[in-house]
Amino acid sequence: MKREKWGFAVTGHGRREHSRARRATISTPHGEIQTPAFIPVGTKGTVKALAVEQIRDSGAQAVLSNAYHLYLQPGPAILDQAGGLSSFMNWKGPTFTDSGGFQVLSLGVGFKKTLAMDPGEVTADDVIQSPKLRLAHVDDDGVTFKSHLDGSMHRFTPEVSMQVQHQIGADIIFAFDECTTLMNTKEYQQIALDRTLAWAHRCIAEHQRLTNERVGKPYQALFGVIQGAQYEDLRKEAARSIAALNFDGFGIGGAIDKSALSQIVSWVTDELPEDKPRHLLGIGEPDDLFRGVESGADTFDCVAPTRNARTSAVYGPSGRFNLTVSENRTAFSPIDENCSCYTCTHYTKAYLHHLFKSKEILGSTLTTIHNVHFTVKIVDKIREHLDQDNYEDFRDDFLARYYSSR
Amino acid sequence: MKREKWGFAVTGHGRREHSRARRATISTPHGEIQTPAFIPVGTKGTVKALAVEQIRDSGAQAVLSNAYHLYLQPGPAILDQAGGLSSFMNWKGPTFTDSGGFQVLSLGVGFKKTLAMDPGEVTADDVIQSPKLRLAHVDDDGVTFKSHLDGSMHRFTPEVSMQVQHQIGADIIFAFDECTTLMNTKEYQQIALDRTLAWAHRCIAEHQRLTNERVGKPYQALFGVIQGAQYEDLRKEAARSIAALNFDGFGIGGAIDKSALSQIVSWVTDELPEDKPRHLLGIGEPDDLFRGVESGADTFDCVAPTRNARTSAVYGPSGRFNLTVSENRTAFSPIDENCSCYTCTHYTKAYLHHLFKSKEILGSTLTTIHNVHFTVKIVDKIREHLDQDNYEDFRDDFLARYYSSR
Repeated sequence: MKREKWGFAVTGHGRREHSRARRATISTPHGEIQTPAFIPVGTKGTVKALAVEQIRDSGAQAVLSNAYHLYLQPGPAILDQAGGLSSFMNWKGPTFTDSGGFQVLSLGVGFKKTLAMDPGEVTADDVIQSPKLRLAHVDDDGVTFKSHLDGSMHRFTPEVSMQVQHQIGADIIFAFDECTTLMNTKEYQQIALDRTLAWAHRCIAEHQRLTNERVGKPYQALFGVIQGAQYEDLRKEAARSIAALNFDGFGIGGAIDKSALSQIVSWVTDELPEDKPRHLLGIGEPDDLFRGVESGADTFDCVAPTRNARTSAVYGPSGRFNLTVSENRTAFSPIDENCSCYTCTHYTKAYLHHLFKSKEILGSTLTTIHNVHFTVKIVDKIREHLDQDNYEDFRDDFLARYYSSR
Repeated sequence: MKREKWGFAVTGHGRREHSRARRATISTPHGEIQTPAFIPVGTKGTVKALAVEQIRDSGAQAVLSNAYHLYLQPGPAILDQAGGLSSFMNWKGPTFTDSGGFQVLSLGVGFKKTLAMDPGEVTADDVIQSPKLRLAHVDDDGVTFKSHLDGSMHRFTPEVSMQVQHQIGADIIFAFDECTTLMNTKEYQQIALDRTLAWAHRCIAEHQRLTNERVGKPYQALFGVIQGAQYEDLRKEAARSIAALNFDGFGIGGAIDKSALSQIVSWVTDELPEDKPRHLLGIGEPDDLFRGVESGADTFDCVAPTRNARTSAVYGPSGRFNLTVSENRTAFSPIDENCSCYTCTHYTKAYLHHLFKSKEILGSTLTTIHNVHFTVKIVDKIREHLDQDNYEDFRDDFLARYYSSR
C-alpha cells in the first residue's frame, strides 16, 4: 500500500562478521529519522516534564505515544480534531503510537512488570462484574479491560485499535497484538501467537479500509508486531508469518529477558526483509541499545530515561546514580562534565539535589532533559561510529566506562 | 552605607493630580530593574516549574526568594558556597530575599492566610514541648518556630536573619520584622511595631558588621519593613521612624485589606523619601498592581500568578479562568490570542486542558510561563504608558476588560 511521503532506505551496514547492525533513513510526512535511533516516550502526548523545544534540543528525532492512554484521555476524537498527535502537542517531528496491546493487558490488569493472566480462569463477565478484580480478559476477538483511571470498562479489538490510531494520527502505528509474559506456558504462547497473526490480518484490512475510505489518515505506516517470547521456533514462525503480510515495518515485542536480548532479536531479524524498518519495543538501557543495534533493530523506545529522571536517577559517564545522595549536597559540578545538554551546561548537581529535596518540578524537567539527551546521544554515536567503521571500539570503550562500577 | 554597584534613580512621575506613580531604575550588581516592576517569586531558589530562560523570556527582571525556605533547605551555607543565590540557581539577573519574618509566623504556625497568634497565651516552651502545637512564639528578642517540613525547632532573631540573608547573597534583602494580622488589636499592633523598629536597628547594625568584617556580601542593599496594619497613625509613625534609619529602600508589609490598599500605601509613601525604592510585599493581582503604582510603590512580588498557574487558573484578557472546565476540551485556540508568551504562541487550551486532566508536569510549566508573562507585562505597560503620559487611559481600558465578567 502506497503511503504519502513514506520511505525507508538502508544506507550502510556493520562491517564485522555476524553484525546485523545497519544504518538507514525512515521518511515520514513529518520528517526523517536517521537510524539507529532512540525514540523517547511521550505516553500521553507529552514527553513528561518537557516542552517540545526541550525534546528537540535533547536531540530526539521522534516521539512515541501510547494509544491506550490517549484513548482514555483526552480521547481520540480530540486528537483528530486537533489535526493529529503531532499538531495537538505541537511537536514538529515524526510520531509513533503503539497499539494499546501492551497497556490494555499490563495496566488493565494492574500488574506492573508481569502479566499474570490465565485466560482459562477469568471471563469478560468476571472482569465486568467484580469491581475489585483488576483484570483484562482476552478472547479471540479482542480484549475487555478496565480503565486504570476510573475502573470503567472498555474493549479493544484489532479494528478498534486501528480506528483509535487513525484518529490519533501518528506517522507510524502498530498492529494490535497479544502481549504475553515469560511466565505463560509455551502452549499458551502458541495460542497468543496465532491470535496475534489473525489480528494482524484484521489490522491490515481495517487500516486499508480506513485509508481508502478517507475516514483515517492517508499517510500512516503500519508496523506488524512479532511476539513469541523466549522460543526460537515461535519467534521465527512469527517473524515469517508477519513478514509475509503487507506491513510497512515491524515491531519486536514481548517481555524479553535481558540476557537473551541479542539472541531473540537476531532470530527475528534473520527472518525479516532487509527493506523494511524494525522497531524494538520498550528497550532503552544503554547496554541493551548496543545489543539491539547489533542484532539488526533500527529504532528503540523506552520509558526508562524519563521515568528514572523523575526519581532523580541520572545517567553519568560511569553509570547511573541518584542525585539525592548526600554527597551531592555540595557537588558544585554538572552531572557529566563532558555532556553538552542544557542541564549539564547550566546547573550543578548541588542545585539538582536541592530541587529534588524540595520536591520542585524543575528537578524532573532538568534530569529528563539530561537522561533523554544521554540516551539519544548513545545511539547518535552508534550511527557515527558505524559510518566511520569503528563501532566496536566505541562500544567497548563506552560499556567499560559506563558499567565500571558494576 | 555605600554598596557596590548599588543605585536608584527616579526618572519620571505620573502627571495627574494626586498620582504618586513614578518611573525609576534600580541598579544592582546583577543588573538593572526598570520600575514599576513585578518580581516573580522563586520561593526555594526556583520560580516553580520554570527554567531560568523561561523566567527571562516571560519578561521578568528579577526574582524574589524566601530566606525562611532556603534556610531550611538547602541551608544558607550551601548557597554561600555556590557563590550566592543567583549563581546557585543560574539566574543572571537581580535577586531579592525576604527576611523570613512573614514565613516564620505564617508557615511556622500552620495557618495559611491568617496569623492568629496571641503572645500572651503561648510561650516558647509550649511550642517546643507540644508536638501538636504548630505555633510560633514571638518575644522581644526574636521568634521561635517549628519547621513546616519536619517539626524541628528553630529561632530567628534580627541577627540570624541578617546572617542567613548574607549567606544566601541576594542583591536586595529585607530587615526582620514582626508580621501581624488584621485580627490583632491595635494595642498589639503598637507592640509589634515597636519591636519591628527595635529589630530594624539591630538588623542595620548586624548588616554593617557582616559587611565591614567581610563575613557577608559587600554588595547587598538592605530594605527596612514598614508595618502598622490598617491604622493611619501607626503606618505613618512606622514609615517615619523606619525612614529615619540608614536603609537602602523600604518594604511595605502586613496583611492589607484589598479595599484599603491605595489608602495604606499612600499613607506610607507620603512619609518616605523620594530617593529610595519602595517594594510592596506580596501584592500581584492585576487591579492591586495599578493601585500600588498609583500609590507610589516601585516593585511588587506575589505568588498568585505562579500558584494559580499550578491549579490551572490562568489570566485571560477578560479575567481569570480555569483551563479544566469542560468547554476547554475542544478549545483549539490559545489562552489569549493577543499574548506573545511561549505558551500562547505554541499551545492550545485543549492541549493544556488535557495536560491538567492527565496531571502532566508540562501543564504547570506552560501556565506558569503565561501567568508570569501576563503579570510582568501589565507592569511593563504601566511603565510605557507613564512615559507616554496616557497611563489612566490604559488602566481604565485594561480594568474594564479584565473585570468585565465580574
